[in-house]
Amino acid sequence: MKNQITSALSDFFFEYETPRQVLVRNRRVGVVCRLIQLGVLVYIIGWVFIYEKGYQSTDTAISSVFTKMKGVGYTNDSGGERVWDVADYVFPSQGDSSFVVMTNYIMTEGQSMGTCPELPGKHDCSTDADCEGGSFKRTGNGEMTGVCVKRTKTCEVLAWCPVEDDREVPDPPLLLSAENYTLFIKNSVTFPAFDVSRSNLVEDIDSNYISRCLYHPDNAPLCPIFKLGDIIKLSDLDFQTIAKVGGAIGIVVDWTCNFDVDVKHCKPEYTFHGLYGSKEGASVGYNFRFARHYMEDKIQKRTLLKVFGIRFDIIVHSLARKFDIIPTLTAIGSGVGIFGVATVVCDLVLLYLLPKREFYKNMKFKYTDTQVQQDSESVGVDTNVYYTLEENAKQAQGKDQSKDPDSEAGSTETDVSKK
Amino acid sequence: MKNQITSALSDFFFEYETPRQVLVRNRRVGVVCRLIQLGVLVYIIGWVFIYEKGYQSTDTAISSVFTKMKGVGYTNDSGGERVWDVADYVFPSQGDSSFVVMTNYIMTEGQSMGTCPELPGKHDCSTDADCEGGSFKRTGNGEMTGVCVKRTKTCEVLAWCPVEDDREVPDPPLLLSAENYTLFIKNSVTFPAFDVSRSNLVEDIDSNYISRCLYHPDNAPLCPIFKLGDIIKLSDLDFQTIAKVGGAIGIVVDWTCNFDVDVKHCKPEYTFHGLYGSKEGASVGYNFRFARHYMEDKIQKRTLLKVFGIRFDIIVHSLARKFDIIPTLTAIGSGVGIFGVATVVCDLVLLYLLPKREFYKNMKFKYTDTQVQQDSESVGVDTNVYYTLEENAKQAQGKDQSKDPDSEAGSTETDVSKK
Amino acid sequence: MKNQITSALSDFFFEYETPRQVLVRNRRVGVVCRLIQLGVLVYIIGWVFIYEKGYQSTDTAISSVFTKMKGVGYTNDSGGERVWDVADYVFPSQGDSSFVVMTNYIMTEGQSMGTCPELPGKHDCSTDADCEGGSFKRTGNGEMTGVCVKRTKTCEVLAWCPVEDDREVPDPPLLLSAENYTLFIKNSVTFPAFDVSRSNLVEDIDSNYISRCLYHPDNAPLCPIFKLGDIIKLSDLDFQTIAKVGGAIGIVVDWTCNFDVDVKHCKPEYTFHGLYGSKEGASVGYNFRFARHYMEDKIQKRTLLKVFGIRFDIIVHSLARKFDIIPTLTAIGSGVGIFGVATVVCDLVLLYLLPKREFYKNMKFKYTDTQVQQDSESVGVDTNVYYTLEENAKQAQGKDQSKDPDSEAGSTETDVSKK
Repeated sequence: MKNQITSALSDFFFEYETPRQVLVRNRRVGVVCRLIQLGVLVYIIGWVFIYEKGYQSTDTAISSVFTKMKGVGYTNDSGGERVWDVADYVFPSQGDSSFVVMTNYIMTEGQSMGTCPELPGKHDCSTDADCEGGSFKRTGNGEMTGVCVKRTKTCEVLAWCPVEDDREVPDPPLLLSAENYTLFIKNSVTFPAFDVSRSNLVEDIDSNYISRCLYHPDNAPLCPIFKLGDIIKLSDLDFQTIAKVGGAIGIVVDWTCNFDVDVKHCKPEYTFHGLYGSKEGASVGYNFRFARHYMEDKIQKRTLLKVFGIRFDIIVHSLARKFDIIPTLTAIGSGVGIFGVATVVCDLVLLYLLPKREFYKNMKFKYTDTQVQQDSESVGVDTNVYYTLEENAKQAQGKDQSKDPDSEAGSTETDVSKK
Repeated sequence: MKNQITSALSDFFFEYETPRQVLVRNRRVGVVCRLIQLGVLVYIIGWVFIYEKGYQSTDTAISSVFTKMKGVGYTNDSGGERVWDVADYVFPSQGDSSFVVMTNYIMTEGQSMGTCPELPGKHDCSTDADCEGGSFKRTGNGEMTGVCVKRTKTCEVLAWCPVEDDREVPDPPLLLSAENYTLFIKNSVTFPAFDVSRSNLVEDIDSNYISRCLYHPDNAPLCPIFKLGDIIKLSDLDFQTIAKVGGAIGIVVDWTCNFDVDVKHCKPEYTFHGLYGSKEGASVGYNFRFARHYMEDKIQKRTLLKVFGIRFDIIVHSLARKFDIIPTLTAIGSGVGIFGVATVVCDLVLLYLLPKREFYKNMKFKYTDTQVQQDSESVGVDTNVYYTLEENAKQAQGKDQSKDPDSEAGSTETDVSKK
Repeated sequence: MKNQITSALSDFFFEYETPRQVLVRNRRVGVVCRLIQLGVLVYIIGWVFIYEKGYQSTDTAISSVFTKMKGVGYTNDSGGERVWDVADYVFPSQGDSSFVVMTNYIMTEGQSMGTCPELPGKHDCSTDADCEGGSFKRTGNGEMTGVCVKRTKTCEVLAWCPVEDDREVPDPPLLLSAENYTLFIKNSVTFPAFDVSRSNLVEDIDSNYISRCLYHPDNAPLCPIFKLGDIIKLSDLDFQTIAKVGGAIGIVVDWTCNFDVDVKHCKPEYTFHGLYGSKEGASVGYNFRFARHYMEDKIQKRTLLKVFGIRFDIIVHSLARKFDIIPTLTAIGSGVGIFGVATVVCDLVLLYLLPKREFYKNMKFKYTDTQVQQDSESVGVDTNVYYTLEENAKQAQGKDQSKDPDSEAGSTETDVSKK
């Protein structure tokens, strides 16, 4: 028993199986097949490996963004001269990756809780019956008291009074100076699969450079300080329009990194594009309402700001690649499979399209004779003496066929030619 | 030399190798193997290609979300009638993808810095010794002064006084009207790999439609305006409960797109679900504290709001697919590999399970004689005349074996059977 | 016709093709090839399947985070004793995944719109000519009036006056007590591909446990309550330094889950690391400006806070795995392909490196004679009489070669040699 296992093991280890092959010397088939195989090889090496870098595994980063605006705005309206600094025009103030820079506004000062007529157009009326007391309108400013104010021909509401009049948006925008504000972006990314952390303040960017640089797509592509006017221009938008009604801009920080080369080549790229399809007109502009509450003479009051502004979304898009044995071998293994497809295609040409297909079929295939086999199966004799059709024919022809070197190559036609 | 290379090259290009195969005519093996191969084929075509769309590469989007609430709330408590508009009940106000709609609150007006007794339950005491002066309690409201206030039997603290009493949450919630507020979502997605940008205001959604539509899962699945009550209902939550203690709801905007068809079929789907397992009870509710600071008679004061509200997280989930040659060929190549596995399985059946396995083994394998080979290796003669074991046996038996049509098929057993 | 199709179909279904193979009995080749194949097998099973879990498909989660700070701070500066509670020191207040805890500040109280001299260093001057009226400086505080203030030797600006003096940052930081604040994190994740939702308040974490636990990497790794001082320590940062100038810390909640085992084993892991490379010095610190507006004697005033703080980014990193038939079969299929590569390598050894390579070549390959084939092609006779080298040789040598075991090894050169 032990001997048998040893022998089986030694058989297994000392034997090696390799498929037998026909070497077809045929120019047409040869060239066609080599070209197909070359195509597959070029595809695997050129496309999968070099172009798509199929030998690398990929990872996306976890990232964190901090932003800081700089610059001062100036307005001179009925309320007198005013300057606006960062604490006034950035919402929210703490430097989020998504924030709004106010460029225009409608300010309603000194609102207090009370009753006053609605804005014309919001809820017009001719008699009190038109104003159902206690009801709301979703787009209205408050709760209707049931009174129709004759002077304005609108319903009276309980609301922060006076109600905001936003029918006319200041044009030109009040804070056109926003064009000169600058935005500073700090972004750090970590690729957990490769254990690499990077900051957008890469090797060459020191505090000295930051203090004087300004982003330019060609001249200073790594400077993390952006002029607002430049961002709008690079997004193909018009500053005056977007400053008036507001808009949203995505700043994409693209980290496409190859960690097979030195990590210092992993640098961010900045691109800019308008969001929310603001050009299509379905829903243009960007605004929100913001209130500052205060007490005056023991009465709670508020200043309501309808803020039109540019919303910036800093969007980090990351894709790092590094050599990895698994995708490499998967690509190779699957490439070998496609090679197999190439062989199948060539075989189809060889066996079905060529004039001498019968010859090649005989070269390639060895048949077990169905007839004889079936017979022997039916009589239940498990003998190993099987003859192929051709062999039987040859036997009938006599012993001179004995030197036939390869019975697969010998076909009926052969016999005929020898006669 | 040049000739040799030319000849090798022409050999390479004009030759084509194809594996030789045995064509086994056996019903059982044939059917079994064809079925296995059919299974593999159905798996590859049906499952990998059609069901899982393995011929496509995938990409996730970078996205940006803007939200806008509309609606007016109304309360009538001890402080008198009040209306609440967007600037009052949405935190933060600038339309983030994550925001809170206040539905209930505990307002503590007119707090100023000073000393006052702690809330009963926060730091009870009977004598001053129970209140260590200068120490803090993590859940307390301020710094202990070391005095035990007899009236309340709690320690005195330096804090914003009077301290907030949040032991009782208003029930029913003060802003039940929040049910009728509406939420408008603007969402834009960009699939960088396919260079496609989409907005949730798709082709059919124009400003006219938006001005009058309201989201309904069946009737208006693309309307980007949602009634808060509907959202809560679709999340399987009870509005009154969640409005009282607060809660968190995720609004998932699902972009599952197939860019092999027209891009206009790439539309968002909205689903709603409660977050933070608020039903399990480990940590129910959602609240935060918010202060409005003001000056009164040169003294800094603040109004503290403990806000209970519904927190909405707009979560964009995106997956786009498009035909790509690489996953297609990888799937095919790996499918060919699995076909190879099918062949291996069939071979095992053929060679180890069938009654006539020996016959098939002889058909499939050609043996090189270890014995003879070793001999010739030892004398160092690289001759091409090798005999297999069987052949030697045949030689010993005489010339009548000469008509053996296929020397590979001749095995020792054959010879034996012929004796 | 119908017969033909039936016959072709039955041929197809009852026939089975299996490649013919040479079984090479050679210790060296056998061992080499078995070792290569073993290596491939170990790689596929050990590495792809067990180590990298190649039989699983992966999914990332959509997640939502809510945070809540607890704790009271205390300062005693020129303005007197003060306590700071959550509503005062957290920005923003509503419990976002990204927020700032104030640890130090420069407060400028009672600013109102007016003219005052710039801060020394911001815009120095000696005469009015140095101060261009109406112009701005990006880093300045306001609009220049064109006057040089002799007392301070700086330009006069229209700004919120008095301008903030941030030349000296309070040291030690005013709110060192922040070290004892605690942070509570609620995080819920949903893996859409596997339809699994999890909360970081996993099975064992009930409200009782939460009320008394404190995160510790070893003793309480699942407690969702973190002491700020611990977080800083675990991020390898110094609390006093970061509290003074500010800093950013990422709290990574890592959900690496295997859904082939019970879902209750899917638990979060918390790690902490400093962001923005604050150690490298290019851009240290974290601060922002924040204003509280109020009215005093009908004049709009504000309190400006330059907030230095620790910014926390709760970053959810998720990767779930589950058995899936497609990656399994893709891995197997591609493994079979790599097995094919192993065979190719062994064949190269067999056919080009071994001394008896010619023998093995003859065993493996069957040649079709180009010469004869070409001839017969030219005369248009499609005859199948081809002779291989050996066969010709055998013919020349006489009938005793008839038992030549391997007839496939013949070539054109044989024919030539016979002439």
